[in-house]
Amino acid sequence: MAEDLPTVRLDDDALHAANLIARRRLPGVVVVDGGSGRPVAVLPGSQVLRFIVPYYVQEDPSLAAVFDERTADQCAASLRGQTVRELLPHESKRTELAMVDGDATAIECAAVMVRLRSPLLVVADGDTVHGVLTASHLLEILLPAADSGPA
Amino acid sequence: MAEDLPTVRLDDDALHAANLIARRRLPGVVVVDGGSGRPVAVLPGSQVLRFIVPYYVQEDPSLAAVFDERTADQCAASLRGQTVRELLPHESKRTELAMVDGDATAIECAAVMVRLRSPLLVVADGDTVHGVLTASHLLEILLPAADSGPA
Repeated sequence: MAEDLPTVRLDDDALHAANLIARRRLPGVVVVDGGSGRPVAVLPGSQVLRFIVPYYVQEDPSLAAVFDERTADQCAASLRGQTVRELLPHESKRTELAMVDGDATAIECAAVMVRLRSPLLVVADGDTVHGVLTASHLLEILLPAADSGPA
Repeated sequence: MAEDLPTVRLDDDALHAANLIARRRLPGVVVVDGGSGRPVAVLPGSQVLRFIVPYYVQEDPSLAAVFDERTADQCAASLRGQTVRELLPHESKRTELAMVDGDATAIECAAVMVRLRSPLLVVADGDTVHGVLTASHLLEILLPAADSGPA
């Protein structure tokens, strides 16, 4: 039941990953270890924004006004020369990867997603990533199609 | 630049909101006050899952095995007769709504989204909801299309 989601490697170019999320309007990408292919993290779009937006603007969004039309160049510049590894929170601060085996039931998937407060769930067996699941996809599986409630 | 996202009212049927998220594969819906139309919260799909999955399964996903094929009926049953208001965290625990005015710049939107750790940003002027923005949409706006980095 998992959906395909592109994977990127820890040492891939950060701007490449950001563009992948942007152009394909993805909630995020799965980050795998370049050597083993083992999934190590999910990089959500919001984490890339966190990296792009200067800290003083995060603290006080009204300061965003100091940004002018060159914004797009500045955003790309902040990613250039960086790797995906540098976009992720430091390893010691990384939360447990929301991941289930290929044979997990829908309710088990939902439980893991809820417990880890993750918007995405990686479905993988060992180093083989099958895809990801979103909350809305799980709801679609869990709720009987015929029952749409009172109109 | 905001995208259309269905709104539901606080007193709408919970199963209706859940089905809306499921069938249209939405990251969530904007919840408005039935009287004024003022946006009061975002209901993410993950919050609906939190409501559906029994607490003991959230704590120990391996207990999901006690669920059998009747799962779908059980999930719908847990929502039946509830309102959207009951799906939301209690008002005292609700986090600040991630919202910007219609004239906010993209970097300002990104700053608010990052500060409030919200995957969705409501764009509204007073009681008029214009739509929502996702992180990937903001990245698309913030990153210059021509620059996709080294292949």
